[in-house]
Amino acid sequence: MSIERKAVTRRAGAAGEDVVAVEEPLDIRVAGETVAVTMRSPGADHELALGFLFAEGVLRELDDVGQVFHCGRSDDDGYGNAIEVTPAPGAHLVLKRVDAARRGTLTTAACGICGRQSIDDLLEQCGPVPEFTPLPRELLLRAPELLRPRQAAFDATGGVHAAAVLSREGVVLASAEDVGRHNAVDKAIGSLLRQRQIPAVRAPGGPEVLVVSGRASFEIVQKAAVARLAAVVSVSAASSLAIDLARRSGLVLAAFARRGTAQWYAGGDRVSG
Amino acid sequence: MSIERKAVTRRAGAAGEDVVAVEEPLDIRVAGETVAVTMRSPGADHELALGFLFAEGVLRELDDVGQVFHCGRSDDDGYGNAIEVTPAPGAHLVLKRVDAARRGTLTTAACGICGRQSIDDLLEQCGPVPEFTPLPRELLLRAPELLRPRQAAFDATGGVHAAAVLSREGVVLASAEDVGRHNAVDKAIGSLLRQRQIPAVRAPGGPEVLVVSGRASFEIVQKAAVARLAAVVSVSAASSLAIDLARRSGLVLAAFARRGTAQWYAGGDRVSG
Repeated sequence: MSIERKAVTRRAGAAGEDVVAVEEPLDIRVAGETVAVTMRSPGADHELALGFLFAEGVLRELDDVGQVFHCGRSDDDGYGNAIEVTPAPGAHLVLKRVDAARRGTLTTAACGICGRQSIDDLLEQCGPVPEFTPLPRELLLRAPELLRPRQAAFDATGGVHAAAVLSREGVVLASAEDVGRHNAVDKAIGSLLRQRQIPAVRAPGGPEVLVVSGRASFEIVQKAAVARLAAVVSVSAASSLAIDLARRSGLVLAAFARRGTAQWYAGGDRVSG
Repeated sequence: MSIERKAVTRRAGAAGEDVVAVEEPLDIRVAGETVAVTMRSPGADHELALGFLFAEGVLRELDDVGQVFHCGRSDDDGYGNAIEVTPAPGAHLVLKRVDAARRGTLTTAACGICGRQSIDDLLEQCGPVPEFTPLPRELLLRAPELLRPRQAAFDATGGVHAAAVLSREGVVLASAEDVGRHNAVDKAIGSLLRQRQIPAVRAPGGPEVLVVSGRASFEIVQKAAVARLAAVVSVSAASSLAIDLARRSGLVLAAFARRGTAQWYAGGDRVSG
């Protein structure tokens, strides 16, 4: 994670210095075409691009990917802010999804756009998540504590979100920080995609739980569902559509996970202990 | 603001009920073409659409707008989730901006994309904000307190962001809550655009200060700059690019505004008292 020193005048006009989180645009391209521009914290750009394209259904697995590289020349102004993903030889990228991703959602542009339709689209794309053995309640309640030591940039700046993917044994398999909470999730999941641990299968030690420092909105639960995880834990609130999606896709959704308690909005019957 | 009751099982499996924030997509169209789909809290959709299009440079003033209406039939599934903005007769909507808005930023797709370029583009579009008399420090420090009583949905759900636009006299001219922090800002500014108080001019009682419940990222400061406001106050952190933009566009930027203190990242010389 990039942080940067900035001159800052503290109150009462005393000159001082403060550390703030760096925010820069990233242009995510597939085969030369811009799919999205996201404002992100520089770093783990490969993971971000892969995680984003995977969540949007453009990529379905690592084998769909040929090369991933920053484009331009290293002495260009802004080098490092455009990343190119090429399809693997013979891979078929679902290009109709590219256009959808550009608009930031998977929903159709029909006038009947609605949250239920967004969920229907997603379930049609990947179905409910695979069956899983009930998850230990204690693990889910402890998930934010497992994320917390991975929040160095937050400690320095107070201005970034974090996400981690855990195994049911409580091992942090991947984590990331970013000025954007969606980006933090994409980076964590993208990192496991690169290691072929995503899409998740139900193997011992494998990824099952996504924990996020921010709110659980539709798009956060969507990313977990597409990754075939089993649970989402948020330290903050969950939205109506996030809850509906978690229920229909078979995910456990725990929100307000703080100080050893949580609200169980979905999948409470698949939590043990 | 819409809130919705959801069945929820609280911990220990006791059945209960909880109030959560509603999240639904909104398809924002200009002259029949989808410009963006955003996940938002239903309500104040006209303001959201106008505020978003204004921030992206598609609209420059209310006179550019012909009609604003939800499209489809009221008995359609998902009715209310697509909104159409038509240009006023003879108005020229800056259509090259539509494509940029679709990608979520104003930056070009050139390989040299970078934060500095994003700021250059914005300043080219609208220049630094007009001169203003130094703002009372006490008002800026008190801004979050003025926002707080307008956060009824947050009180009920813990899951929504809020934004308000204030005069230097401390009057809340507009406020909004939304699951998306950008949307809350667009709704508040869009509401003043509809009342022809935005773009802001330096008149007594006029809008000068944007206060937000979340972080001050580039896009939040962008919205204030395009609206010609004088200051942004955030209760949370500011990003590097938000600070750079505030400095170059002449805005005051105060972050971590809590309990009567703040960090002054930009424009500290235009704060009095």
